[in-house]
Amino acid sequence: MRLWGGAFNEPSDQDLQRLNDSIGFDKRMAYQDIQGSIAYALAIAQAGVITAQDAERIVEGLKQVLIEFESGSFVLRPGDEDIHTAVERRLMELIGPLGGRLHTGRSRNDQVATDFRLWTMRAIDDLRAQIRAMQVALIEQAQAHIDWLMPGYTHLQPAQPITVGHWLMSFFWMLKRDDDRLEQARRRTAVSPLGSGALAGTPFAIDREALAEALGFAECSQNSLDAVSDRDFVAEVLFDCALLGTHLSRLAEDLIIYSNPAFGYVTLHDRYSTGSSLMPQKRNPDPMELARGKAGRLIGNLTGLLATLKGLPSAYNKDLQEDKEALFDSCDNLMALMPVLTAVIHSLKLNRDKMEAGLSQDMLATDMADYLVRKGVPFREAHHIVGRAVRLAAEQGVGLLSVPVQALQALCPLFEDDLSESLSFAASVAKRQATGGTAPQAVQRQIDLARRLLS
Amino acid sequence: MRLWGGAFNEPSDQDLQRLNDSIGFDKRMAYQDIQGSIAYALAIAQAGVITAQDAERIVEGLKQVLIEFESGSFVLRPGDEDIHTAVERRLMELIGPLGGRLHTGRSRNDQVATDFRLWTMRAIDDLRAQIRAMQVALIEQAQAHIDWLMPGYTHLQPAQPITVGHWLMSFFWMLKRDDDRLEQARRRTAVSPLGSGALAGTPFAIDREALAEALGFAECSQNSLDAVSDRDFVAEVLFDCALLGTHLSRLAEDLIIYSNPAFGYVTLHDRYSTGSSLMPQKRNPDPMELARGKAGRLIGNLTGLLATLKGLPSAYNKDLQEDKEALFDSCDNLMALMPVLTAVIHSLKLNRDKMEAGLSQDMLATDMADYLVRKGVPFREAHHIVGRAVRLAAEQGVGLLSVPVQALQALCPLFEDDLSESLSFAASVAKRQATGGTAPQAVQRQIDLARRLLS
Amino acid sequence: MRLWGGAFNEPSDQDLQRLNDSIGFDKRMAYQDIQGSIAYALAIAQAGVITAQDAERIVEGLKQVLIEFESGSFVLRPGDEDIHTAVERRLMELIGPLGGRLHTGRSRNDQVATDFRLWTMRAIDDLRAQIRAMQVALIEQAQAHIDWLMPGYTHLQPAQPITVGHWLMSFFWMLKRDDDRLEQARRRTAVSPLGSGALAGTPFAIDREALAEALGFAECSQNSLDAVSDRDFVAEVLFDCALLGTHLSRLAEDLIIYSNPAFGYVTLHDRYSTGSSLMPQKRNPDPMELARGKAGRLIGNLTGLLATLKGLPSAYNKDLQEDKEALFDSCDNLMALMPVLTAVIHSLKLNRDKMEAGLSQDMLATDMADYLVRKGVPFREAHHIVGRAVRLAAEQGVGLLSVPVQALQALCPLFEDDLSESLSFAASVAKRQATGGTAPQAVQRQIDLARRLLS
Amino acid sequence: MRLWGGAFNEPSDQDLQRLNDSIGFDKRMAYQDIQGSIAYALAIAQAGVITAQDAERIVEGLKQVLIEFESGSFVLRPGDEDIHTAVERRLMELIGPLGGRLHTGRSRNDQVATDFRLWTMRAIDDLRAQIRAMQVALIEQAQAHIDWLMPGYTHLQPAQPITVGHWLMSFFWMLKRDDDRLEQARRRTAVSPLGSGALAGTPFAIDREALAEALGFAECSQNSLDAVSDRDFVAEVLFDCALLGTHLSRLAEDLIIYSNPAFGYVTLHDRYSTGSSLMPQKRNPDPMELARGKAGRLIGNLTGLLATLKGLPSAYNKDLQEDKEALFDSCDNLMALMPVLTAVIHSLKLNRDKMEAGLSQDMLATDMADYLVRKGVPFREAHHIVGRAVRLAAEQGVGLLSVPVQALQALCPLFEDDLSESLSFAASVAKRQATGGTAPQAVQRQIDLARRLLS
Repeated sequence: MRLWGGAFNEPSDQDLQRLNDSIGFDKRMAYQDIQGSIAYALAIAQAGVITAQDAERIVEGLKQVLIEFESGSFVLRPGDEDIHTAVERRLMELIGPLGGRLHTGRSRNDQVATDFRLWTMRAIDDLRAQIRAMQVALIEQAQAHIDWLMPGYTHLQPAQPITVGHWLMSFFWMLKRDDDRLEQARRRTAVSPLGSGALAGTPFAIDREALAEALGFAECSQNSLDAVSDRDFVAEVLFDCALLGTHLSRLAEDLIIYSNPAFGYVTLHDRYSTGSSLMPQKRNPDPMELARGKAGRLIGNLTGLLATLKGLPSAYNKDLQEDKEALFDSCDNLMALMPVLTAVIHSLKLNRDKMEAGLSQDMLATDMADYLVRKGVPFREAHHIVGRAVRLAAEQGVGLLSVPVQALQALCPLFEDDLSESLSFAASVAKRQATGGTAPQAVQRQIDLARRLLS
Repeated sequence: MRLWGGAFNEPSDQDLQRLNDSIGFDKRMAYQDIQGSIAYALAIAQAGVITAQDAERIVEGLKQVLIEFESGSFVLRPGDEDIHTAVERRLMELIGPLGGRLHTGRSRNDQVATDFRLWTMRAIDDLRAQIRAMQVALIEQAQAHIDWLMPGYTHLQPAQPITVGHWLMSFFWMLKRDDDRLEQARRRTAVSPLGSGALAGTPFAIDREALAEALGFAECSQNSLDAVSDRDFVAEVLFDCALLGTHLSRLAEDLIIYSNPAFGYVTLHDRYSTGSSLMPQKRNPDPMELARGKAGRLIGNLTGLLATLKGLPSAYNKDLQEDKEALFDSCDNLMALMPVLTAVIHSLKLNRDKMEAGLSQDMLATDMADYLVRKGVPFREAHHIVGRAVRLAAEQGVGLLSVPVQALQALCPLFEDDLSESLSFAASVAKRQATGGTAPQAVQRQIDLARRLLS
Repeated sequence: MRLWGGAFNEPSDQDLQRLNDSIGFDKRMAYQDIQGSIAYALAIAQAGVITAQDAERIVEGLKQVLIEFESGSFVLRPGDEDIHTAVERRLMELIGPLGGRLHTGRSRNDQVATDFRLWTMRAIDDLRAQIRAMQVALIEQAQAHIDWLMPGYTHLQPAQPITVGHWLMSFFWMLKRDDDRLEQARRRTAVSPLGSGALAGTPFAIDREALAEALGFAECSQNSLDAVSDRDFVAEVLFDCALLGTHLSRLAEDLIIYSNPAFGYVTLHDRYSTGSSLMPQKRNPDPMELARGKAGRLIGNLTGLLATLKGLPSAYNKDLQEDKEALFDSCDNLMALMPVLTAVIHSLKLNRDKMEAGLSQDMLATDMADYLVRKGVPFREAHHIVGRAVRLAAEQGVGLLSVPVQALQALCPLFEDDLSESLSFAASVAKRQATGGTAPQAVQRQIDLARRLLS
Repeated sequence: MRLWGGAFNEPSDQDLQRLNDSIGFDKRMAYQDIQGSIAYALAIAQAGVITAQDAERIVEGLKQVLIEFESGSFVLRPGDEDIHTAVERRLMELIGPLGGRLHTGRSRNDQVATDFRLWTMRAIDDLRAQIRAMQVALIEQAQAHIDWLMPGYTHLQPAQPITVGHWLMSFFWMLKRDDDRLEQARRRTAVSPLGSGALAGTPFAIDREALAEALGFAECSQNSLDAVSDRDFVAEVLFDCALLGTHLSRLAEDLIIYSNPAFGYVTLHDRYSTGSSLMPQKRNPDPMELARGKAGRLIGNLTGLLATLKGLPSAYNKDLQEDKEALFDSCDNLMALMPVLTAVIHSLKLNRDKMEAGLSQDMLATDMADYLVRKGVPFREAHHIVGRAVRLAAEQGVGLLSVPVQALQALCPLFEDDLSESLSFAASVAKRQATGGTAPQAVQRQIDLARRLLS
């Protein structure tokens, strides 16, 4: 059964049907489609378009169809071009021509937009739950290693000592922004297009606001032309997924590098490492590499949809059918990835000795400059003096703190014997207590705030 | 003057300098850089790092540098690798070594993030003003043509009659979502990274919250590692620009098609049309084509930045320097495009006769099916009957409303003489009064709501 | 069975397996995997690594596995993480531990690259066959309508008359370039990585050149590190697909616009049109809209892979597993789309009267300027004079050719009575006989050349 | 002066002019524009459209304009909307109305396509020269370190020992493919559109083939509609740039990681390192980070253009004006980047001791498995045995080669005293002599082939 065809002399070509049919992927919106149809049946009964009894029988029939879907007993038939057709076809098999009243005033254009928004609202909730689970894992590990020292890098070159808790918490805030964006995207998704018809609105006296509320939407759309072709919510969630994926890729990059034995800062648990078919000794951080690689895929899904939307004329165009697989793919990939990454974080072994061994004296050069600043040297000059001290140390093949004070005094007489005692990795970290700094106290405040934000 | 180099034996290669230097494009953040430095000077004075007098002299010097920038008299020097270096170099020329105290505890990593956020906040404000101006133009034209009839299309094929006001207002709501997104992106942009140092936070007792407030930020960042490398705000604004551009491209597509003489629904004003160097008669809708084409460019800028961010290790990496030109380009293009499009809308000539001539009787087929529905026929069956009526009309080479009722009754005995009087373009439109429908009353409610939202 | 794990204390987490396993999509390379293994077994026998008898038994076993795959009787088992594992596991079930000799010196890194290149070579052949079929359709329709006149547009505004054959042939040349690119991509794909091991090459005396030849490759790779991580061929085919898709989207845009009744230049066959669930009269050009929409998806697949490849360290990284689904998706979509589009072209009804009705006199303005040029007026001046004539005609509300010669002479005395006879749509077209011009003779030469290129 | 306007009642709006004008960026095609015009003047003289004397004066005038451009004395005027207008305007200032004959039969549509193709051909040549220079640098360094040992990684985890020459040469082959692609793209670029007019071809008897040859094109276009709107060459070069950029990003990633002191395998020369404004000790690999970051930008430029091209109707549309800045940007960035990277490679210090210290005994696990294979154990079984040996070594906290043979014999009795002598990093590498392997002899063959390919 097709929902159309009266005006046609010939049936569709088979190849066209294969190309055109969306049932292969939109069947996963069966729940939302039936949910929407149940609410719609009640709404058109309310509006007097069908009788209450008819609505009741339609709702009963739809519930039966849902049971078939949920139990896996629903059988697709040739001609079921999309989930809407399949459900209506089955409904009419179950309750007869009465089922044909359901579609009154409704088009697949507003129906599919409704289904897809409902699906997306749930997908956002699922993603946000995964984000929170990962945030919890980060907080726990940060708390447990709040004052461990590790090298901080910029440009992947030794910069300054930081604390492990600080490093881990940096990812918390990325995820926080992702969560905020998804929450706001959800609000823009929760706008009901139902009752927009094909493009011009409904000629029946449907209470669209009540219908929206019945389906869990926050409001209903204000312009039917826009409503049937608005895919902003898809683009926005795809963007949020892409940026979330980018954050995960950065965490992944750190863990991949830090788990190379040259660093050895972290060890992935056996359960989250994989081996090689050729090299028996291999322990590969596959989940982190997939996190990094999938960021590309998520970017591609976003790009593809935006390019598809570009230049479309008003109202619904079939091009919009390309929206679903992109979003399904982005959500599915994140939902497969995030639990594993969260488990990786939970089970991550941090190697304190390796991290401390990674600290080098030149990472205190800024503190040495600050030492001079506190003695009155303008920072720019202090920076230059210490730069020369660094070069001196390199020429002598010693660490920066091992250059004799006398030699330093040749660069600047303000260097004194108190220098060495005032410079240490722990002291460097401890001084950075302002909001957002790496000092354990500051990190504790971060963690406390993070916990409040989650609760 | 470089801000570094004490530890180096040799100066940078000239080619590297050309590659590395960002002064060519970041000089447009001169205002923000100086604004940030003034606030920073006061903050480190407050923290006791420099004296109040020193701060005062630094601020005086910075104001002088700003005057030079604003008057166009600032002269770039070799070695001014970025705006931060240029300003600090000039400051030291003006006030001597004291200028070297300004950078105490500050890195270009937190400085550039501060500058760029301040710049972006202003750019968002500018974009939002353009959006609002375009919304006003749409409302005005919609109000002026609230009940004019025009063909509504889906799949660019005749669908149902709609009103011109409804069509124009559909773009209002796209822009409304753009405005919402930008407003929320602005909140996430208004987070001060200043006081994060290079990556680890500041060792000085700076009141970062007060500093943030002094600069117009809403809050300050909570993690210095994140703060120096967070470019979410750039990605987010680039996305908002890309989606805004996509909306403009859809408006453009409509106007391009509707201004082809085969449609002739609209005429662009002479001032917003262009000609051909070869064909004397040409009137081309160049601004609309550029709107459509630039959507691609905006998508590219977004994609490029996301790909750049992908897989970066923690904290600042030089890759992030690629963020600015992308955002400048997206904002500049929209700021050049939008005033023209707004003027196009304001000056657009709508051709009522052409639009009405575009209405064809088959666009009332749905209303004909609804006619049967109101007589008790299930919609699906009514749809099929009317489909056959459409085919009949086509075979007879007449309009759908010109098929004799007797012939229709052969398809369904419920067709009666009242059919023709109940079917008209105006009636079709008038029935669609539910929220978001195309009826003039519904459009008036849209416009009223839109005006409230703008005020 | 996993192909690794001896060094691990604990098995992989279930979630990780779900994330990591590629069998869900790489099973479609079963043929290539087995083909590669058969050739490899013979190659290591040739190199003396295994005996000829062992090789024979392995080959027999592999052929049996292939039969199972081709008959659909192959059963996946838990632990079959990818197609390579599944085949090796089944082989060992069939022929015992001897099957474990097959992997000697081979890694999944070179194996998967081999499989995927073989798959891609076949996919390119399939795409090229589709391109040629579409080119044939275009030539046939162009030949059949070689001298029909239609309006030519630039900026979608009336420009000059052209011939239908010329318009249709313009797409032939786009496809020709696509075909060229794919042919060249195929040559770069036909480079055998087999024998590269995991990254360092094989320690066995395998004749890699002979092995490459046995598998239908044109040459073998020259650097094992590059060979296991080179995905240029994937990116290149994704690009070729994206650009091909862009060409199809342009054809689609023309047909979508030209099938709107305001133009009515073309009618899609019933078999390639679709209807609406709500509006009984609808005839939508769905395949063309999908062609346009899928161009976005193809762009997304390309972007995604490039972003994934960006910044990867040397040799194989798991990120590369993301390569397959992107290419499968692009090829599958084009293979579903192209036969339908070719059928659309073959069955396309061209409406001569509508096209001729679309011709307007102002489209001869350039010819009118050329008329003056032939009388000695510099073109720029002639252009300006005719521009004023166009304005005059518009003011008088008549066609350009209906402006009296006397009135034209006021603009330029060189206008004479021979003007009207020298200006006609047919004459305009007939004059454009230089290579690539729209005159029927020139189009015939195009077609003749096109036919030669195809044969 | 505008090249059009006769038909217009009002001049263009100022904002529209700012939006529309391309002179800001297309002026860099001045040379190509004038070159094209000189050839065109001669061609229309040859065709009898203008006299030989007129052509001579036009050519003289154009040469004068070129001199003004090259000397920097050319002055842009208001109204110079693009390079074509600017040149024609100046020409007419210099030689009077005669200059207005130049544009006969030519449109900016074929003119700009001609200019841009000529520009692109030169840009490709420049890029290819840079590629070759980098290939030479790689070969030289590979030759100089052909047999140095270093750890080879997959998944960034220790895999097998490789030679430095092998590692460096892996990038040679990536560049080789880039060069091949660019060469082929150049052939598709070298197709002359000149003589296609606005869309329909030229009505004058111009010898387009001779004109093409005069300008250095290999052939002329076969369809004028296609010719004026074909931007495949731009997309293709943008793709080639993006993939080239991706390769550079991979080299960059290796060098960034290897220059971290935890690895210390390479040291960038002082001239190609940069410092920090805050941290005096810093030595950052900025050029490599920019290489990595710019890959994103190059991907964005490609994506943007493809999205712009998507869905355009036939022939020229103004959207195409967006093509130039994207290609200029990609080429400019690569031309700024590549000389620096080549210099980085030339001046790169490789630290043999660090590389050798990075080799660990477990990287010989595959060789240990091969040892058993040579004694008759099926590889899969040998892999498992050695996996257990690796675990044993880890449990005992010793290197794999330090596990006593007796302990190994408990895993497999075929382990014998000859094990340790047959396993060494040098031996492992030396065995991989097949084509593409890491053995010094194989690398020498690579280098020899590479040199032949370059010469």
